[in-house]
This record gives sequence, structure tokens and C-alpha cells, in this order.
Amino acid sequence: MPTIVQKYGGTSVEGAERIKNVARRIVAAHDAGNKVVVVVSAMGDSTDELLKMAHQISAAPPERELDMLLSTGERVSVALLAMAIHELGRTAISLSGNQAGIQTNTVHTRARITGVETGRLIEELESGKIVLVAGFQGVSPDEDVTTLGRGGSDTTAVALAAALGAGQCEIYTDVEGVYTADPGIVPDARRLASVSYGEMLEMAATGAEVLMLRSVEYAQKYGVPLHVRSSFSGDPGTCIREEDEEMEKAVVSAVTYTSDESKLTLLRVPDRPGVAATVFGALAEADVNVDTIIQNVSEQGTTDISFTVNQTDLPGAQKALQAIAGDLGVAFLIDNDMGKVSIVGAGMKSYPGVAAKMFGTLAAAGVNIEMISTSSIKISCVIKRGQVKKAVQALHEAFGLGNTV
Amino acid sequence: MPTIVQKYGGTSVEGAERIKNVARRIVAAHDAGNKVVVVVSAMGDSTDELLKMAHQISAAPPERELDMLLSTGERVSVALLAMAIHELGRTAISLSGNQAGIQTNTVHTRARITGVETGRLIEELESGKIVLVAGFQGVSPDEDVTTLGRGGSDTTAVALAAALGAGQCEIYTDVEGVYTADPGIVPDARRLASVSYGEMLEMAATGAEVLMLRSVEYAQKYGVPLHVRSSFSGDPGTCIREEDEEMEKAVVSAVTYTSDESKLTLLRVPDRPGVAATVFGALAEADVNVDTIIQNVSEQGTTDISFTVNQTDLPGAQKALQAIAGDLGVAFLIDNDMGKVSIVGAGMKSYPGVAAKMFGTLAAAGVNIEMISTSSIKISCVIKRGQVKKAVQALHEAFGLGNTV
Repeated sequence: MPTIVQKYGGTSVEGAERIKNVARRIVAAHDAGNKVVVVVSAMGDSTDELLKMAHQISAAPPERELDMLLSTGERVSVALLAMAIHELGRTAISLSGNQAGIQTNTVHTRARITGVETGRLIEELESGKIVLVAGFQGVSPDEDVTTLGRGGSDTTAVALAAALGAGQCEIYTDVEGVYTADPGIVPDARRLASVSYGEMLEMAATGAEVLMLRSVEYAQKYGVPLHVRSSFSGDPGTCIREEDEEMEKAVVSAVTYTSDESKLTLLRVPDRPGVAATVFGALAEADVNVDTIIQNVSEQGTTDISFTVNQTDLPGAQKALQAIAGDLGVAFLIDNDMGKVSIVGAGMKSYPGVAAKMFGTLAAAGVNIEMISTSSIKISCVIKRGQVKKAVQALHEAFGLGNTV
Repeated sequence: MPTIVQKYGGTSVEGAERIKNVARRIVAAHDAGNKVVVVVSAMGDSTDELLKMAHQISAAPPERELDMLLSTGERVSVALLAMAIHELGRTAISLSGNQAGIQTNTVHTRARITGVETGRLIEELESGKIVLVAGFQGVSPDEDVTTLGRGGSDTTAVALAAALGAGQCEIYTDVEGVYTADPGIVPDARRLASVSYGEMLEMAATGAEVLMLRSVEYAQKYGVPLHVRSSFSGDPGTCIREEDEEMEKAVVSAVTYTSDESKLTLLRVPDRPGVAATVFGALAEADVNVDTIIQNVSEQGTTDISFTVNQTDLPGAQKALQAIAGDLGVAFLIDNDMGKVSIVGAGMKSYPGVAAKMFGTLAAAGVNIEMISTSSIKISCVIKRGQVKKAVQALHEAFGLGNTV
């Protein structure tokens, strides 16, 4: 009997009616002759509600306690879903991350899965039960509850699929799949039938929100095919798997963007070894996630270094730079008004001229490029936030990504 | 260093401000040189909210899943309280029932504590931490979450106090202690400085809501003195302990009442052995909690049997009686409009005439007594619901229980 792993996001289980709807889907998969394991997120915005409560009490709550708090949201949805399945006359059992054998390291609020003890999972499946697992959480070697960070439920699902040797991992969400661009900005954006792990990683890293980076990394590492689908329709969704011959190798598959970048520029940095290491070491120490980095050509023994961070990291970055700017004898500028537009495509590496076409398209649209960074299957341009929407639309059009119907 | 166990009820931790207030009390106990273990209930009406969600999905949710669901409420409060204590610069750790070693049987939604594994508790206390334990929950031999039923957090606190050899167990609630009567009905009701376990058991069994029966039984069994106090004031509260010489032996200590009784009467029951066993066996089978039972003198080979149940048990009782009434050849009547008034006092057993005074007082107040039941330290009268308030006031006055100031 094949094993399938499904994951339902928070909007899919928001309220009694949606929970009943999800229960019917799960029962259908069970009745079709599968062993079914289901990972569930917290209902709707309940995690945000819990965070709000925590911040009414403490500006910086201890992370172990935050995990104890936040892990309750998924327990609520998994218990309610079990009840809904029982109402349909099938037997389901809800398991916490701990009960499901999700073992993690001790890094609270962003723990990594270190292994899956499948004993109880397999036992419950063998006894004919549908197994529901609280997503986003695990247990540390200290027997404490940990959480896996944003998108953690996807990672739970992928880890379970890998550990149980499931044929695939179905990610049910509130969108129809992975699109060529955000349909909210580009009305004729098209659903992609399949995307390679590599493309999906670049898309997640450059702003596509449908899957979090870590779950895609995990799926790639263990070779688990992902299938992103809507929990509200029967539409076919998007498959994310190893790049293969059958896969359409578009030069450009999608346009992605972010609107919450801040640019920091260090002026007249002494052009001697170790300076960049000092700067980015201090930022890493402060837990600031640095995105694009550019160092201009040096002039008269000094150079300018620019980099972007997510807006939420800006206060931390400023503090870290202030602490070292004096010693280095440098000033810095902040531009808090930035965004980033990217094109991603597995075929890009074998087609020259893609970058030139991107820059040309942006120029024609009157969009000034402030920074550029590339990988073999992605080109990103940092631009003014106010021009992001226009840039996405122009690139989607220029690379012919829309519905041609 | 002495160990003290405190328990805070749901209203004491309802909202950020109250949680901070409770944190200050706990820190004060810690700073006074105690090892402090704190048991916390779910915030305000959050347990009812969770139950409401469950009932939107299922009229009769599986009890294991109900426990998974309901146990989250206490985890939320215990995590938030840990954060509040950290804000005050002390170190606290929250533990689930499982982590705190609260072992129970497998009877979900009303599990009994079978033991306390104190290993981790003691380890955390030894390391100087304030230990916060999610009340109302434990872990079954199957490694599943169980809950202890209504008032379960009190029982958690008493069990921990017993297991840790704590000098006493402080129960913080939203009232000032145990009163001679419900102050909502009797404005001059007086706080009792001390009450014996036996009196408290009778009071809890006859309607006093300040402590649940099972936690008092547990405290008596292990000789743990309870101290009921308000979390909103510094008032001295009420001590509940073994009856001793110092304790004021009032003939009557308190008047209690319930307003949610239903009376069922079986008419012309054949007066032969085994009939009562059949009736009450069927009710026990249906999980109906029968309170007062009266069998009238038999007449012409038949007898009438009356008993009361809580209103919530009425549908179950009716169903059970319908199933056996035919076989027994009896009819039954239901009066859903009943209440009960009781007087409780450890001194009662050595004073004759207390019952006569009670009946006379009720008669003078125009209250008709429908059923009577007694123990050595309690007399209860089943009366019409609409007369309960008047009866309580008259008895409180007649036995001189009010403030004499």
C-alpha cells in the first residue's frame, strides 16, 4: 500500500468548514488505498495572535518559551482535523511533533530537523489509522519543544515523506501552484506545470512565497518530489522535482520580486585586506542576513561597499555598523526605499544575452538598476521600491511568460 | 531551602497585565528564599473557546483528540508567564504536564494522576529556576496527552506539592478564600480562616465552587495543607487542613447550594430485591452521576424511588430509564426545576438539634423540602430552584454565620 504525505497550510484549515473540507480530501486519499500522513499548520493567523500575546509581555521573549507557546497552534488544528475525520467515519490520530518522532537540534525558533524516529508513525499507519502530524515543531535532545521557523510545516512534511519513503509530498495551499509571476501584479501570469528544485530554490530566495527555501533544500537533498496544489480546487498544481529531459527548459521560467529591501553603503572604506571581513563579520554576529553585496572599484586607496538587507534587519545592521564605523574611519548611508526584481530559469545558463535583454527591458521601462547579482539560473536587480511593480510587468511581458491563449 | 507550590487559576492569568501581576507574586516568593513551583490554568475562557471549536466540528469528539486540543490552553499560559518572569530578570522554565512528570491513567478527559516523576522538576529547581507547570494535564502510559477534568489544575498542584514534599500548596483564585456562603447571594458572608478537609469535601460536593472535590481528596490523602487566596490582593485567605484542636469547631461552618438539579421519580416500583440495583446499575452504565436517592416506605408491594442528577446528566438518565422502564413495568416522572441547599460543619456531629433547626428555618421561610440527605457533618435539602436563594439567606442568618461587625 503506497504511503502519501500531504501538508495543509493555515488558510486551508481556517475555521470549521475548511477543516471539514480538508477532512474530505484526506479521507478520499485514504479510501483510494493509500497510507496517509498529513501535516497541518496552525489555523489562519493564530500564530500571529500568539506572537502578539508574547510581545504584550516581552519585547524579546526567551526563544525556548516562544517555542512552547507557538507550538500550540498546530496542536489545535491537528486535533480538530482528527475530530472532523472521525465525523466521516474513519479513524485518525493526531500526533505532536514529538510524538511523530521529529527530532531537531536545540536552536529554538529556527531548529533544524536532525532525524525522524518513525516507530510510532509506522505503528499507527499499520493499524489502519490516518496519521495527522502537528507541523512546524519537533523535540530537542533536552526533551523540549522546538519550532522550525517560517514555512516549517512544509519542512516537516518533506522530512516525513523522506523518512517514510513516500512517493511524493503534496503541499496544499491557498494558491493553484507556482506561477510565472505574482498574479496580483501580473494578471496574465501562468501556472507552471513543473519546476526544477534549482529553479524553485532561486525563486524562493528571490521572493516567491509559495514554498520556503529550507523545505525545497530538504526535498532536493532527499529527492522527494513536491506537488504544490490548491486545497480549494481539483486543479493539477505544480510539480517540483529533479531537472529531467521531459521538463520544459524555459530560458526564463518566472519573474520574482521583493519590496522590503534596505540598501546600506559604506563610503571610502580603506582598501586593505580584512576590512570586508570585519564589516560582514560584525553583521553576521548581529544575526543580520545580508543579501546582495557590491564592492565598487577602488579609487585612491578607498572603496565603497554597498549591500542590501531585509527591512526587518535594518536596525540590527545599523547598530552593528555604528559599532565598527569609528574604528574603520568610515561613514555609511542608508536607503530604506529599495526592492529587487529577479528572473529565474534553468535554461538561462545555455542562452547568452538574457542579462542584456533584462537590463534593456528595465531601461525601456524607465527603471534604474542600482545593484546586480547573478547565479547560473538567476539574475537579480536591486531597484527603487516604487518601480518594482512596473519592472515585474515589463519583464514578464518581454520574456513571453504570460498565457498565450 | 523550602519548596512551595502555587497554583493560579484562569482569571488570574487573563491578559498581559494579570500575567505580569502573577509574575511579580511568583518572583517575590522566589526572592524570599523558596524553591517555587507554579501550576497555571488556561487563560480566562480559552478552554471554553477550544471546546466551542471542537463542537463546531463534532457533537461527540473523540476524547483523546479533545485532550490534545484542550491541553494547549495551559501551555499557552505557562509559556507567557515564563516570559513575564524573564522580563523581571529571573529565570523560569515552563514544562508541559508530560515534561513535569505528571503520569496518569488512559481515561481521556478525566484521567487520574497515577504518579509524579520528579526528576526533571528537581533538576530545574536545583539549577535555581522557577518552574512553571501546565496544569490540568499529564501523560498516559501510551505517551498520549491526557487531561484531568474540571478543576484539574488544582489536582496538579496538590500532586506536585505531595511529590516534592512542599510545606503547603497555595491556590490563587479570583475570590478571597472560602466563605460561609456565596457572597453573591449573602452580602454579609464571612471568609473562613480555616476549614477541615472533611468540611471542604462536603462543601465542594454540595456546590462550593472554589475547589474541586478531587483536589481536596488528593490533598487529604497526602496530608498537603491547602491555602486558598486571591491573586488580586494580599488578604490572608483560607487554610484547608487536617482538623485539629486549634481549629474553630463551628456547629455550622457554611451554607452551600446548587441550582441545577433534576429530580426523577420512579413510580410503583415492584418491592423486590434487585430492582434498585437494576435502576442504578443502568444509570452508572450511562455515566450518570446520581446525587441524593430516596426510597419511600413501601405500600401494597410497590414503592416510589426518587433521585436527583445534575441537569447536564438528565438526557442520559432519561435514556437509561426508558431502556429499563418497560421491563420493570414502571413509569417515571421528571422535575427539572430543582435545587439543593446544604449546611456543613465539623461540629455538627456532636450537637443534636441542628437538623431540626434547619428544617424549622426553611419552613418559616416558606420553603418546602422535597428530599433530605445527611452525613455526619452535612445536611442537604432538595428544594425548588426558585427558592434556593431565599433558603440560603435564611439559613446563613439562622446559624449566625455573617459578619457580626
